[in-house]
Amino acid sequence: MSEMRQDPTTKEWVIIAKERLKRPSDFRNKTPRPETPSFEPSCPFCPGNENLTPIPVYSSLNLNKDSWLVRVFPNKFPALTLDGSAVRHLEQGAFLSMDGIGIHEVIVETPIHNKPIALMGDDKVEEILRTYRQRYDAVAQIPNIKSIIIFKNWGPAAGTSLDHPHSQLVAMAIVPRHMRIQYDIAISYYDDNGRCLYSDLIDRELEAGDRIVMETDRFVVFHPFASHRPFETWIIPKANQASFNQASLADIQQLAQVLRITLLKLYRGLDNPDLNFIIDSAPIGEERTDFYKWHLRIIPRISNLAGFEIGSGIYINTALPEETAQFMRELRV
Amino acid sequence: MSEMRQDPTTKEWVIIAKERLKRPSDFRNKTPRPETPSFEPSCPFCPGNENLTPIPVYSSLNLNKDSWLVRVFPNKFPALTLDGSAVRHLEQGAFLSMDGIGIHEVIVETPIHNKPIALMGDDKVEEILRTYRQRYDAVAQIPNIKSIIIFKNWGPAAGTSLDHPHSQLVAMAIVPRHMRIQYDIAISYYDDNGRCLYSDLIDRELEAGDRIVMETDRFVVFHPFASHRPFETWIIPKANQASFNQASLADIQQLAQVLRITLLKLYRGLDNPDLNFIIDSAPIGEERTDFYKWHLRIIPRISNLAGFEIGSGIYINTALPEETAQFMRELRV
Repeated sequence: MSEMRQDPTTKEWVIIAKERLKRPSDFRNKTPRPETPSFEPSCPFCPGNENLTPIPVYSSLNLNKDSWLVRVFPNKFPALTLDGSAVRHLEQGAFLSMDGIGIHEVIVETPIHNKPIALMGDDKVEEILRTYRQRYDAVAQIPNIKSIIIFKNWGPAAGTSLDHPHSQLVAMAIVPRHMRIQYDIAISYYDDNGRCLYSDLIDRELEAGDRIVMETDRFVVFHPFASHRPFETWIIPKANQASFNQASLADIQQLAQVLRITLLKLYRGLDNPDLNFIIDSAPIGEERTDFYKWHLRIIPRISNLAGFEIGSGIYINTALPEETAQFMRELRV
Repeated sequence: MSEMRQDPTTKEWVIIAKERLKRPSDFRNKTPRPETPSFEPSCPFCPGNENLTPIPVYSSLNLNKDSWLVRVFPNKFPALTLDGSAVRHLEQGAFLSMDGIGIHEVIVETPIHNKPIALMGDDKVEEILRTYRQRYDAVAQIPNIKSIIIFKNWGPAAGTSLDHPHSQLVAMAIVPRHMRIQYDIAISYYDDNGRCLYSDLIDRELEAGDRIVMETDRFVVFHPFASHRPFETWIIPKANQASFNQASLADIQQLAQVLRITLLKLYRGLDNPDLNFIIDSAPIGEERTDFYKWHLRIIPRISNLAGFEIGSGIYINTALPEETAQFMRELRV
């Protein structure tokens, strides 16, 4: 018999399909990606091709200043831009629209074409995360910006065709409904209990123990009770921080290590799976540390969504988070 | 500049990405599926292999009764089953779960291995839809069932590896949060306006005209104003029917023709794209015809979701529904 579990942060149910359950090692990548060189002359993100991308809004240099470490520039084909207004238009009493205003940036994580975060040194990962934080801070100051999401698409199944390691920042003039629902649930929980839902969740997960991948003095890494997909992994701070830019530089330093180890475990354990990761933060101007915590979600793209998931919003997960967390915990990297 | 549009049925915003916009014909399938035979000896859904699948709960025979037309049986690896209870369990004050109870059936649409609905005769499509309706009716009587979704996965990108045309029915002991939100929005609209949101939507779409694919006396086929993905297509009844099993046999007869033509236009126009379709109905026992309408959504699986969509719930659509609807409207099949 299957089990249904409710995600306490979204109130969505998930089906843990016991009849279709696979072992953690069954999720290993069956079609590993071809080897790529450390430099690819035709890659717009490789050193020497900087003229192929827009003028950077940020770049960090190495100590000798002879090359960049991380580069950030506006997306050449942006989903959102700053020209326009946040005024809503209602046509025929039914069709609500607005200008697609916002920011869309690309963060090139390394000059090395074939170096994923999983295989970088901690200092390099820290440089990327400091860049995220710097851009989050800068973009959050722009009028009309109500939400910021930082995310990474790794591999074709995760929605990118570019091999060179990069991530993206999108800032919007709206709060996505998805985010608003999560935030409302967190507020209700706080109103009912006088405590932060996310703090309680960490405490309960640490008590249960069997879904924990890793714990440090500042972070908890776990596979959620109601994981939507196999190997969904959350990294969440213990401190009361509603937004990613509330993380201190010491937090960022430790996060770099925690993220690298987590990604390395996925890289080794599942043979470099396609994946997304996403940093969720509170809406801009609503950063209430008493009921919300920013968190980083890693979603390996192992299976395709089918009609049932698209239609119902309910995910069928063929992995038991207790088993995948144990697999990750025991993996030596 | 991009445009943001709000889906009136879910209040989700969608980004129509003007900088990345493609023409309708650009969405043609680049890797057409290999030809398959009309009979495949190793296929569990082909005639002669009936012993490889569970005992049918329904089958319809042809006039000579020498073969079946449509067969329905329980899924061999069901996501949900009827053994268990709908009682919720809360553990550690944080983890809510219940037995995965429900029904999971497979509907084999034809004995012919390589015959998609798009290429069938109207009578064959009608037989499939009558089967859907029969199963919906039967399953809706079962105690504890609160919602029923009928869906089809066509092609690997749509989540199936089985070529033989089939669809599925899943009945659940819960109302998915996704459905509940849509229903609440429809109720609010009714409370505010005294009219059905979905009826108003059809009227406004017919008035606008440019997103209409096809109109008959009983159905409207259109590409929604805030389409989440390229070529997302809705088929919706004009009559006040909250659930699929409120459709009359005359409705089903006309739906068969409308669905076949719509799928044939996608088949010819986009070269047999992978796709899902989903029939959304009101929750069982809450079939209020004054504020909700069942509808059939077709979602071609042309592009992969990336981190932005997963993280924010906001879709970036690279097609203009006005252009794709025109393409569909003008296509002669």
